[in-house]
Amino acid sequence: MQRRDFLKKTAIAGAATSMTPLMAKSNKKVKLKLATSWPARFSIMGTGIEDFEKNVKKMSGGSLEIKVYPANSLVPALSVFDAVSKGDIDAFHSGPYYWKGKNLAFSLFTGFPFGFTTEEHGAWMLHGGGLELWRELYAKYNLYPLMGGNTGMQMGGWFKKEIKSLQDLKGLKMRIPGLGGEVMSKLGVNPVLMAAGDIYTSLERGTIDATEWIAPAHDIKMGFDKVAKYYYAGWHEPGSMLEITFNKKVWDGLSEEHQSIIEAASAQMHSNMIFEFMAENAKALQKINTKKVKIAHFPEPIIKSAKKAFDEVVAEQSAKSDDFKKVWASCQQFLKVARGWSDLGSSAYFKVRNS
Amino acid sequence: MQRRDFLKKTAIAGAATSMTPLMAKSNKKVKLKLATSWPARFSIMGTGIEDFEKNVKKMSGGSLEIKVYPANSLVPALSVFDAVSKGDIDAFHSGPYYWKGKNLAFSLFTGFPFGFTTEEHGAWMLHGGGLELWRELYAKYNLYPLMGGNTGMQMGGWFKKEIKSLQDLKGLKMRIPGLGGEVMSKLGVNPVLMAAGDIYTSLERGTIDATEWIAPAHDIKMGFDKVAKYYYAGWHEPGSMLEITFNKKVWDGLSEEHQSIIEAASAQMHSNMIFEFMAENAKALQKINTKKVKIAHFPEPIIKSAKKAFDEVVAEQSAKSDDFKKVWASCQQFLKVARGWSDLGSSAYFKVRNS
Repeated sequence: MQRRDFLKKTAIAGAATSMTPLMAKSNKKVKLKLATSWPARFSIMGTGIEDFEKNVKKMSGGSLEIKVYPANSLVPALSVFDAVSKGDIDAFHSGPYYWKGKNLAFSLFTGFPFGFTTEEHGAWMLHGGGLELWRELYAKYNLYPLMGGNTGMQMGGWFKKEIKSLQDLKGLKMRIPGLGGEVMSKLGVNPVLMAAGDIYTSLERGTIDATEWIAPAHDIKMGFDKVAKYYYAGWHEPGSMLEITFNKKVWDGLSEEHQSIIEAASAQMHSNMIFEFMAENAKALQKINTKKVKIAHFPEPIIKSAKKAFDEVVAEQSAKSDDFKKVWASCQQFLKVARGWSDLGSSAYFKVRNS
Repeated sequence: MQRRDFLKKTAIAGAATSMTPLMAKSNKKVKLKLATSWPARFSIMGTGIEDFEKNVKKMSGGSLEIKVYPANSLVPALSVFDAVSKGDIDAFHSGPYYWKGKNLAFSLFTGFPFGFTTEEHGAWMLHGGGLELWRELYAKYNLYPLMGGNTGMQMGGWFKKEIKSLQDLKGLKMRIPGLGGEVMSKLGVNPVLMAAGDIYTSLERGTIDATEWIAPAHDIKMGFDKVAKYYYAGWHEPGSMLEITFNKKVWDGLSEEHQSIIEAASAQMHSNMIFEFMAENAKALQKINTKKVKIAHFPEPIIKSAKKAFDEVVAEQSAKSDDFKKVWASCQQFLKVARGWSDLGSSAYFKVRNS
């Protein structure tokens, strides 16, 4: 089915659900549809939003049902933003950086290279102006976003060959999206986009030389350790936030009770997901350590060049987009403050614990 | 009023609330009393539990009210465990290490020197067996605990003199409770316990030579920077968890709806508190940096000796308490796994970001 036809069909169902907010005012039964960008039962992210569905139902005594639809069951994985913006679907669970085509600034709400850790990101959102900026920008698209999980630290990716110098990066074909991809491009890498299902085979056959994905828990499930022997520590996604985003009219039409249930359930998902990523990545790393994989760190000249390249990316995107410029100013200002405490608190602690 | 009389009086009110669980089954209005160990509007911890009260009320459409009572308004700050255990009060918000007199193992649920970071702690709780162990032990006291916030990294404390060697610690009088205090004691420090309100004056007058408290946000409010010039980075409380704990009969008597509302509201508080501590500590550290305070790190020989001393403390407490031994085995096993990922993920990232 063509995407256009598909959206037309679901628009009919959408019209029905768009009536529900009016009923919600009196707390009658509200049924909403939420589409995700993940397959059903997708580890941590997919199971997280499925738990959210159950929790919301329980908390509301059944008066609020937010049925979760896995990727491609209502609309394609990356059409959820448009479908909810138009009101064809009530809500989605995905990640803001997928919509940078709509607005360059959206990337920054997910995170950025050399940027916020998970804790710093949450602090920026709730106490540094991030959430207000995000809601202001999403309102232009009829959307009302909430924090919907964070992956924690991500890895730099899997490479078939060791990367000893900047020279080794030149001409490499690497699956790496987003701002990380734009930085890599400036270092001579050819960033390639491809569907998740194609990455393993492409890496095995040498169609690509490297790929990033998430972190040990998900990476080991993809089997990358079988086809690439160098696993590099991260720099480009230090704590990527996911989102649970509602059509703004649908959100505004919900009762205060249902809104507060959704707020708590999304915060619960956010926090549980951080801890689940921590636990599952730790367990998976132990398995990776038993395999023929070399855990590696990019040499300092590459990191320094990547930082310089990222400054250029920021300058370019700021020139193109006032929204990017505005959100970046907020990120940069808060990161400066947050880093001071992270360095004296967490970073110094890791040194002490390992000394 | 004597504590005993006071408890007798509140026991009458307690009897009334202990009937509410039966009514809860049919979701009639449930009113519970929650006592905290903090003064009213106490920064982050106190305001966090006050937000919890509001959120629970909103989510339940007013059918569940958990009225928050600040420290000493129903029972003394540190009598909340006993009062809830007996059923005089329905719930409390406090920290498990305050009850080590009941059971040595309880300290470990808060955290321990050179132990879990905030993320590792949550991972241990939810995916490493921590929560099951905690609930099993608390059940013996008729209690049902939930995670109720985490302070994040705490500082090592304020010292009037610079600490250059182990010799400089000998004979120092320091306000430091818990496992950190026991370690310090083995290093020749005299750990002193005192009420929060007395610390500043004692430090000013030289009755004590040093004190730990929490981290920049709370420490600066205490004014310690005016009476001690050396502020040491942390090692003994790398991520202290708070608790929201119910009388088990009260909990079991709640409807599934109300239980799930409390679960979500406590997870929301947990997550919000982590981000608020991150933000407020970062902002406060910037202020401290403008004052005549030397931010310092304990020399490596002190850290090494503290680790050795902590091993001794663990051996002693394991010999005294089978519960401690059992919980410690779980902590130790999970910490080993978690550290691998924290070192490759977060710790390596801080190095890269600062390089």
